[in-house]
Amino acid sequence: MIATIPPAEIGMPLREVDTPALLIDLDAFERNLERMRTSLAGSRTRLRPHAKTHKCPLIALQQIDRGAVGVCCQKVGEAEAMVGGGVKDVFVSNEIVGRTKLNRLLSLAETACVAVCADDPFHVQAYGQAAREQQVVLDVFVELNVGAERCGLDPGAAVVDLARRIAQTPSLRFAGLQAYHGSAQHLRTPAERRQAVRSAVEKVMETKALLQAQGLDCETVTGAGTGTYLLEAASGIYDELQPGSYIFMDVDYAKNQDEDGQPQKNFEHSLFVYTTVISRPHSTRAVVDAGHKALPVDSGLPQVFGLEDVEYVRPSDEHGKLALHNPRIQLRIGDQLMLIPGHCDPTVNLFDWYVGIRGGRVETLWPITARGAMR
Amino acid sequence: MIATIPPAEIGMPLREVDTPALLIDLDAFERNLERMRTSLAGSRTRLRPHAKTHKCPLIALQQIDRGAVGVCCQKVGEAEAMVGGGVKDVFVSNEIVGRTKLNRLLSLAETACVAVCADDPFHVQAYGQAAREQQVVLDVFVELNVGAERCGLDPGAAVVDLARRIAQTPSLRFAGLQAYHGSAQHLRTPAERRQAVRSAVEKVMETKALLQAQGLDCETVTGAGTGTYLLEAASGIYDELQPGSYIFMDVDYAKNQDEDGQPQKNFEHSLFVYTTVISRPHSTRAVVDAGHKALPVDSGLPQVFGLEDVEYVRPSDEHGKLALHNPRIQLRIGDQLMLIPGHCDPTVNLFDWYVGIRGGRVETLWPITARGAMR
Repeated sequence: MIATIPPAEIGMPLREVDTPALLIDLDAFERNLERMRTSLAGSRTRLRPHAKTHKCPLIALQQIDRGAVGVCCQKVGEAEAMVGGGVKDVFVSNEIVGRTKLNRLLSLAETACVAVCADDPFHVQAYGQAAREQQVVLDVFVELNVGAERCGLDPGAAVVDLARRIAQTPSLRFAGLQAYHGSAQHLRTPAERRQAVRSAVEKVMETKALLQAQGLDCETVTGAGTGTYLLEAASGIYDELQPGSYIFMDVDYAKNQDEDGQPQKNFEHSLFVYTTVISRPHSTRAVVDAGHKALPVDSGLPQVFGLEDVEYVRPSDEHGKLALHNPRIQLRIGDQLMLIPGHCDPTVNLFDWYVGIRGGRVETLWPITARGAMR
Repeated sequence: MIATIPPAEIGMPLREVDTPALLIDLDAFERNLERMRTSLAGSRTRLRPHAKTHKCPLIALQQIDRGAVGVCCQKVGEAEAMVGGGVKDVFVSNEIVGRTKLNRLLSLAETACVAVCADDPFHVQAYGQAAREQQVVLDVFVELNVGAERCGLDPGAAVVDLARRIAQTPSLRFAGLQAYHGSAQHLRTPAERRQAVRSAVEKVMETKALLQAQGLDCETVTGAGTGTYLLEAASGIYDELQPGSYIFMDVDYAKNQDEDGQPQKNFEHSLFVYTTVISRPHSTRAVVDAGHKALPVDSGLPQVFGLEDVEYVRPSDEHGKLALHNPRIQLRIGDQLMLIPGHCDPTVNLFDWYVGIRGGRVETLWPITARGAMR
């Protein structure tokens, strides 16, 4: 298929990269990797970054090189891409339904450590049967609703019942609690995030106590994202952390504030959609070749990187309209711009290649092997 | 890559199709094709559907079988997919910038009729040079801004100047005017759409007169979409029509009203994202396996097809949260649902396969060969 041809060649100057293309500023990306490692130095909490963000085993291996114990995935197809690319430890932080998918997941368990989530006896029954038939013992986490109000059981007797069902199924092993507070990641002030994570931690503690009272050992509590992971790490109750976006950052995450009410600076933008001006029909308007099909807008519009007074104001499917707020801006047809995606995860999912840039040249081409792996 | 494995086999019952999958209800789809043909029977206006909607030459060929003269594309990669799949006449209704892309476009001109748009002397110079060097004569349309306020020149002397530059370039041929009023497609009342198209038609007439006065023959005026195409057809001034969404329809287009203020019924929903319930954590909540990465929300949320009191209320990247407004709804983990996409074009762009369904069984698997072809 057309999109599988890379938009660049290694060694090429950035200027010659075909657009739209998904760029990684390799220096910024590596600084983000290093900052994550440094921020957890001395902590007993393990790092298990979420690969749903990057969908690329070559990136997962760099995270593991810098201390991650493995990765999380949301889909079996992502897990296949990771294991196929050499990752040895994958936690599917999601409920998996359907025998086709379960068989694929269990096949991975022959060469890698694999775990999955459940929040209903339905899952436990299905996992148990499939694992028994494939003669595998599968690690299963109970998903706890700690505030995201999506999947997951509320704290209480149902959690204990489900954990016991897992523990009593010979082909399954009760591995712990999945306790991810998704909506907390994007709360803008530190006070709001602290409050949300405090509430999540209370729910986890309550649940661990209930489990313990019933003789059920909760080996691992896993959760957290880029917006809150230091809070979970400091809680003493989380054993693994699942941040994903820290490697790239996006417009939405950059709106999170630090203690002084300023945009957080702990990680920097390293992911960009490279785009070309294709039309300059008015002094105040330019049109670029990246619209909805290159830049999802679910979390807001992209921003133009490094150019003041140029605003990405309106995407259509294949076009992006830029407002030029200063009539003296020199922006000509053929000029290229870097756009910071509104939301990195669904943006990555539209591209087949990362073009890694350093010193103004293409240094790497990494295939996004789990692009579109939604099953 | 993982996503290129189809989610179904031919002959399989719908129930066994792996999810998320992109379904076509083949009966509804064929009725839409037929309705388009019937609605233009006796008209002198030619149909050139937009392939940016479906990205699949197997669908383009069905449109051509039913009277279309060829297709439109927005990107060179889409045009490559169409010509590679047997389409002989492709109009790129967009400005193309960059020598790599132009060379690819001109290569197609060796086996197919190819045309492209310009709205600046920059394009004419670049097209002319590339076409001369590849020894091809390229058809070029001047894009006119008829209300979309995106690319395109406003009516006036600049249009005449650009047309003349094209006509005077030996390797180019001035083919006419691209006059697409994008925003008019989604105006909700017929009165608003009539007013918008009336304004567009006036701009085209004014421009044609200016061109004629300078001895420049405007062979073809092309434009229109699913929301307004009958108005352009009735205008007497449009020669070709570019509707795309009529084959599938989506939640957004279904909001357009007819003369009685009712939702338009000229075309029906034939495109669905097939999804599975993976979690039922509460009596009022279900979670399905299709979120942002299966269903872009740029034009609003998807709708659950054929189930009352079930509302898709909140996507996250890989999950869709359903509100169950009636506590007696029977919806269990493992149940499958059909979702009508909010916006068909970017939804199609996330999938690698159409699964064609008839009589509850998989009848066809069509590859979406231009998925991700954004360059």
